[in-house]
Amino acid sequence: METISEQACFGGVQGVYRHGSQTCDCDMTFGLFLPDEARDGPVPVLWFLSGLTCTHENAMTKAGAQAHAAAEGIALVFPDTSPRGAEVADADDFAMGQGASFYVNATQAPWSKQYRMWDYLAQELPDLLAAEVPLDMGRQAITGHSMGGHGALTLGMGLKGRFRSISAFAPMSNTTQSDWGVPQLSQYLGEDRTAWEAHDASLLMARDGFDGPVLIDQGTADQFLDKLRPEALARAIAERRQEATFRMQPGYDHSYFFVSSFMEDHVEFHAQALWA
Amino acid sequence: METISEQACFGGVQGVYRHGSQTCDCDMTFGLFLPDEARDGPVPVLWFLSGLTCTHENAMTKAGAQAHAAAEGIALVFPDTSPRGAEVADADDFAMGQGASFYVNATQAPWSKQYRMWDYLAQELPDLLAAEVPLDMGRQAITGHSMGGHGALTLGMGLKGRFRSISAFAPMSNTTQSDWGVPQLSQYLGEDRTAWEAHDASLLMARDGFDGPVLIDQGTADQFLDKLRPEALARAIAERRQEATFRMQPGYDHSYFFVSSFMEDHVEFHAQALWA
Repeated sequence: METISEQACFGGVQGVYRHGSQTCDCDMTFGLFLPDEARDGPVPVLWFLSGLTCTHENAMTKAGAQAHAAAEGIALVFPDTSPRGAEVADADDFAMGQGASFYVNATQAPWSKQYRMWDYLAQELPDLLAAEVPLDMGRQAITGHSMGGHGALTLGMGLKGRFRSISAFAPMSNTTQSDWGVPQLSQYLGEDRTAWEAHDASLLMARDGFDGPVLIDQGTADQFLDKLRPEALARAIAERRQEATFRMQPGYDHSYFFVSSFMEDHVEFHAQALWA
Repeated sequence: METISEQACFGGVQGVYRHGSQTCDCDMTFGLFLPDEARDGPVPVLWFLSGLTCTHENAMTKAGAQAHAAAEGIALVFPDTSPRGAEVADADDFAMGQGASFYVNATQAPWSKQYRMWDYLAQELPDLLAAEVPLDMGRQAITGHSMGGHGALTLGMGLKGRFRSISAFAPMSNTTQSDWGVPQLSQYLGEDRTAWEAHDASLLMARDGFDGPVLIDQGTADQFLDKLRPEALARAIAERRQEATFRMQPGYDHSYFFVSSFMEDHVEFHAQALWA
């Protein structure tokens, strides 16, 4: 684990690190915010998964999360959104390839060689962090934005017992029925749609739900509402009687101005579960 | 005044606007955050001036100021750092030309034609805002980062009676004695150093001071300390008996991780003066 940078931030340290990933067969970069409390021992951790075109850096610089994580004594992990590099398969479409993993383990060529973000986030990166960083891996929560909201919901529900709480900002909520989902899942996972089901937040919510609280924020002026399909997730939550808060926020769009506006609520929501 | 974008943000609106500037003889772009209270009438305004290489956008997306401005019911203006465009004089050096006005009215060719940022910020942009936006121009304060901290201090002290409070993050504090100052002031203003004095925060502090409170934050791990010369400003403040708080913040560097870490303090500091 190589240190790219470490900068003082809200009394803690905002770091950027690189490591050779066996899972993705390339170097991977991630951001990590450690609050001051981490000097004294392990702290709880909130994962933030980013959206299409993002790297580890977008949320780290624009979401305003460190202020609230510092106040709650919680670490933040900002993983990248896909494998990266000249040797990594890519596509011209911004919604496919580098910056657009959809957080799956691809099974189809040429993606299957390196697009194994599910395993990377479920196993390799947590193992690395547990070994190298003072994190209390018994206290984890997960959130994300857009494609990262999809990742937070699918990993959060898929890895049973791993996370205490899940939240999402404007998540891709119903990938098997969306232009943000169908073209990508078919390329990553092939045409057998049964393999897609574990990567559709609304189907997972309907089938499994989550053993803990869920918080979703969605702007009513989001320019991608037809692709995000929040109505599918809202319906699944209500039908399941899932413990959840689903908020349609009037006038907000899909940007980090929206994400940052509600970040304090999300960090406090997770802190309540993490410190319980 | 043309609207480039308007996005919901912390209950208010983060806008970006463009207008034809007579002062700078080019189109100028600025960011404006209006809190929800601006729907009901004029609100106080805090100006944020940015540093070298920045545009109107850097602080708007990375400083986290809107959260605190919304909490205090205060507007934020994020001007650009220089005139812009293919027809605007420029230099290869990132510390000269576009993105590096040093907030002066240039008197030397080729800069004098359009590099009139002092007049733009002192007169034209305030006049435009007063005419078009619900701002209480009797309640103004000013802050900035690096070169923008220099601008906040020099405009703040130079425009007597205009601002109720001044603050700065890692300001260029002593431009007439720094590699960030001497090369630029000589090109913008010529070799007669008496013309430079109004653009050196420490000299202005020693000569005029400010009729109101001043807040300065400076990171001890700032990679540009030798160019910023905070010691000159600290000494001038103390010698003058200026009402001021000057904080050396251990471990912080020159980045927006530093700026955002202390933004809440600065907005609350200005709010106290603005609402008095």
